[in-house]
Amino acid sequence: MAKIKPSIPQGTRDFGPQVMRKRNYIMQTIRETFQVFGFQPLETPAMEQLDTLTGKYGDEGDQLMFKILNNGETLNKAATPIAASIQENTPLTRSVRLFSEKALRYDLTIPFARFVAMNQNELAMPFKRYQMQPVWRADKPQRGRYREFYQCDADVVGSNSLLNEIELLLIYDTVFEKLGLHGHELRVNNRKILSGLAEIAGRPDLLTDITVAIDKLDKIGIAKVKEELQQRGLGETEINVIENFLHIDGSNSEKLAQLSALLKNSPTGMKGIEEISFVLNAGLAKFSSTPILDVTLARGLNYYTGMIIEVKAPASVAIGSIGGGGRYDDLTGLFGLPGISGVGISFGVDRIYDVLEQLVLFPEAAQQSTKVLFLHLGEASIQTAFPLMMQLRRKGIPAELFHEASKMDKQLKYADKRSIPYIVILGDSELAENKVSIKNLNTREQQTVTLEDFELFAFE
Amino acid sequence: MAKIKPSIPQGTRDFGPQVMRKRNYIMQTIRETFQVFGFQPLETPAMEQLDTLTGKYGDEGDQLMFKILNNGETLNKAATPIAASIQENTPLTRSVRLFSEKALRYDLTIPFARFVAMNQNELAMPFKRYQMQPVWRADKPQRGRYREFYQCDADVVGSNSLLNEIELLLIYDTVFEKLGLHGHELRVNNRKILSGLAEIAGRPDLLTDITVAIDKLDKIGIAKVKEELQQRGLGETEINVIENFLHIDGSNSEKLAQLSALLKNSPTGMKGIEEISFVLNAGLAKFSSTPILDVTLARGLNYYTGMIIEVKAPASVAIGSIGGGGRYDDLTGLFGLPGISGVGISFGVDRIYDVLEQLVLFPEAAQQSTKVLFLHLGEASIQTAFPLMMQLRRKGIPAELFHEASKMDKQLKYADKRSIPYIVILGDSELAENKVSIKNLNTREQQTVTLEDFELFAFE
Repeated sequence: MAKIKPSIPQGTRDFGPQVMRKRNYIMQTIRETFQVFGFQPLETPAMEQLDTLTGKYGDEGDQLMFKILNNGETLNKAATPIAASIQENTPLTRSVRLFSEKALRYDLTIPFARFVAMNQNELAMPFKRYQMQPVWRADKPQRGRYREFYQCDADVVGSNSLLNEIELLLIYDTVFEKLGLHGHELRVNNRKILSGLAEIAGRPDLLTDITVAIDKLDKIGIAKVKEELQQRGLGETEINVIENFLHIDGSNSEKLAQLSALLKNSPTGMKGIEEISFVLNAGLAKFSSTPILDVTLARGLNYYTGMIIEVKAPASVAIGSIGGGGRYDDLTGLFGLPGISGVGISFGVDRIYDVLEQLVLFPEAAQQSTKVLFLHLGEASIQTAFPLMMQLRRKGIPAELFHEASKMDKQLKYADKRSIPYIVILGDSELAENKVSIKNLNTREQQTVTLEDFELFAFE
Repeated sequence: MAKIKPSIPQGTRDFGPQVMRKRNYIMQTIRETFQVFGFQPLETPAMEQLDTLTGKYGDEGDQLMFKILNNGETLNKAATPIAASIQENTPLTRSVRLFSEKALRYDLTIPFARFVAMNQNELAMPFKRYQMQPVWRADKPQRGRYREFYQCDADVVGSNSLLNEIELLLIYDTVFEKLGLHGHELRVNNRKILSGLAEIAGRPDLLTDITVAIDKLDKIGIAKVKEELQQRGLGETEINVIENFLHIDGSNSEKLAQLSALLKNSPTGMKGIEEISFVLNAGLAKFSSTPILDVTLARGLNYYTGMIIEVKAPASVAIGSIGGGGRYDDLTGLFGLPGISGVGISFGVDRIYDVLEQLVLFPEAAQQSTKVLFLHLGEASIQTAFPLMMQLRRKGIPAELFHEASKMDKQLKYADKRSIPYIVILGDSELAENKVSIKNLNTREQQTVTLEDFELFAFE
C-alpha cells in the first residue's frame, strides 16, 4: 500500500487527551444538570432519511447538508437519469436525490421531532429529553466554525406551561454557576412582543424584516437600524413607532411598564408581555444571574412563537452568544403529529470551552489524567508495585506502571510530559525494608512509608 | 411542506431514555476503567479523507464504507468524467472518487493510527488512548448487525512490553467484574504459535487457510475442520500435524508443555509460547476470571502479530464474543510512521447490553431517571414546592414539578409511566401546618414531615 501523508477533512477536528478532558468536564456538567432537572437521554442516528431533513432548514440548509452517497447497485441504477441530467446540462447538485437517500443530521431538533412523532404512543407527556451529539454542516470553514460540532440540547414537548421556560432558564443558571462563570447574561424576549410591535407599527407583513433589523441594535446602533428599516420598506411613522420601542429601557419592571403602554392595543403583544412577566416574576427560584428582558432579541429564527432566550458570554471575552433557545409551536406537525408545543435550549460547547479557557476557569481535575506513576525498577520491583497499583485503581485513582525498566531519566520524562504529579519508587532499599517511596513531582517532596501506610496515603 | 411518514435509515437505531440509561451505565463502567488504568481520551472526526480509509479493510470494507457525496461545485465539476464513465458502461461504483472525497469512519483503529502519525511529536510514548465513538458500515442489516454502532477501544502504541497485554486483560477482567458478569471467558492465543504450527506442518504459505479452518473447531468439530483443511489444499501428513495440535488440552501449563514439545523446531512458535507464558504466568495480579489459553483462537484477522484475545459471553446466553483484540505491528507505517507496535482491545457494547439484559444484571440505578415528582396542587403549592425541589437537585437528586395543576390522577399516571418512585404532596393541609407529605409509590408508604425533616429525608 502506498504511504499517505495523513490529514483530516477541512473544518473537522481531532480532540486529543488534554482537550477531551476539558470538553468532558463541560459536557458532564451540562449532562448532570439536565438529569437533576428530570430530563431524559436520547440518541438518534447520525444519518437520517434525506426526506426527513430536506426543506427544514431553508435552501441554505439543504445546500449545506452532508449527503451520503448511495452504495452499490443503488448508485449504478441511477446511471441513466444521471446521464440525462448531464446531457441537459443541469447542475448535478440539482439532482442530488439520484446520488443519495440519506444525509448526516444538521441539528438535533428535527431528529428529535421525528423521534417524538414515531414514538408518540410510548412517551409519557410532557416528554423532556436531552441530547448531546455531533451535527454536520458543510459551512465554509472559518475561525470558530466547524463542519462537525456537538450540540447539547434540552427540550420539552407536550406542555404549554410557562414553568418549562423557568426550568430551562434555571438549567442555564445552574450550569454556568457550576462552571464558575460570572458576568454572563441570560437575555429573554417573547416573539409575541415583536409581533405586537409589527402590528402597532401597522406592518405585521414586515415582521421578519423588522426583527432582523432591530436584532442588530447592539452592533450597529439606532441610526443604522432606522436606515435599514427604511431600506426594508418602512415609512417614517412606522419607523417612529419602532424607535419608541427601541428606547425602552431600565429594570425589567420598568421595561414591562413601558411595553404595556406601547403595546396596549395589540392583544398579541399584551399576551407576550403577560408571558414574559410570569417567567420573570414568578419568584419560584433564585437565579445567580437574573434574566434580563431584552426587547430587541429575535435570534433571527422564525420558528420561535413564544419566549426567546440567549446567553451572552461575559463581556470581557468578546465571544458573544454561548447558548440560546425558545418556544416553538407545532414542530412535530411536519411529521404528522400536530398541536404539540415545544420549548428548548442549546449549549454552545465550543464557545463555552473558549470562554473557560480565556478566563482560566477549568479546574485542576479537568486537566489531570494519571495521578500516580509506578517506576519500573526491574522484575522484583514490579512484583511489589503491581498489587499496590491495582489497589489505587480499585479506589478510583488513575495509576500506571512504566512499561519497561528504562533509565530513571526516561521514566521521569514520561511522568513530566504526561503531567503525572506522583511517582512511586520501589528500589532495592525500599524492597529490603518493605517500604515504598512516594515523590510529589510538583512540590519535590519525597517520603518513605510502610506498605500499610501506603494504603492510607492521600494522593491529592 | 408535505407531511412525511417518518422513518430512520435501515440498520440504524434511536436510543430512547430507558435504553440510553443502560447503555450509559455500560459505557461509563468501561470509561472509568480505561481511565484508572491510565488510558487517555481521544475523539476523531466522523468523516475521514477517503484516502485515509480506502484499502485498509480489504475490498469488502471499501464497498461497505459510507461515502459522503461531494457538495456544490465539486460535484458539478465531476459531470464530464461521470458522463464518460457512463458512456463506457463501467459501473458508477468503480468511479466513486468522482462523487466523493470523504467517508464515515469504518472503525476506530485506522483513525487512531492516522492521529498518531499526525501528532507523533507531541505525544508521550507509549501513548495509551481510549476512544468510544460510533462507526458506520453498510452491512446487510440483520439481527444483531447494525449500520451504525459504537466501538469502545483501548490501545497502546509505542511499546513492545508484554506488560501491556497483561494490563489489557486486567481491563477486561475489571470491567466485567464491575458489571457483575460471571462465567465469561478470557481466551488468549498468540499469532506466532499459529505461524509455528504452519511451519511445522510444512505449509507456512497456507497460514491463513489453516487459521481460518481451525478457528471453527468449536462450531463444526474436528472432522469438519480436517475436511476443510483438505479442501484448502493440505495433504494428509500436514493435516495430521494440525490434528495433533488441535488435541492439545488441559490446564494452561499442560497446554504450554504440549505446545513446547510440538513446536520445538519452530523458533517463531517457541517465541509465541514464551510470550504467552509470560502473560499467563507473570503473577502480577489476580484475575476474577483467569485467562484461558485457546490454541485455536485466530479471530480471522491477519494483522495480529502477537497476542490474540477474545472474550466469550457466559455459555448460558449463547451470544458468543463480547470483546476482542490483540497485538499488531507497524500499523502507523501506512501513514509514514514505521516501527511502532500496538496492542489493543475492544468492547462489544451492543452484545454486552444483550448479555446484561438476559441475565438481569442492570442495577436499579441504571433504570431510574427522576426520583421525586412534586405534584402541582395550585399556585400556593408550587411556591413552597419549587425551593424544596431545587434543594434536592443541588444534592444531585433528580426531581421534577408536574408542569400544570392537572387532576391528581393524571399526575400520578405520569409518575407511574416514568417509574418515578417518590411523590411529594403540598396540599392545603400540609401548607397550613408547614409540613410536607412524601409517598413512596413502590411501598405505598406515606409520611408527613416538617420542612426541616424534609431536608434530611433519604430518598433511596
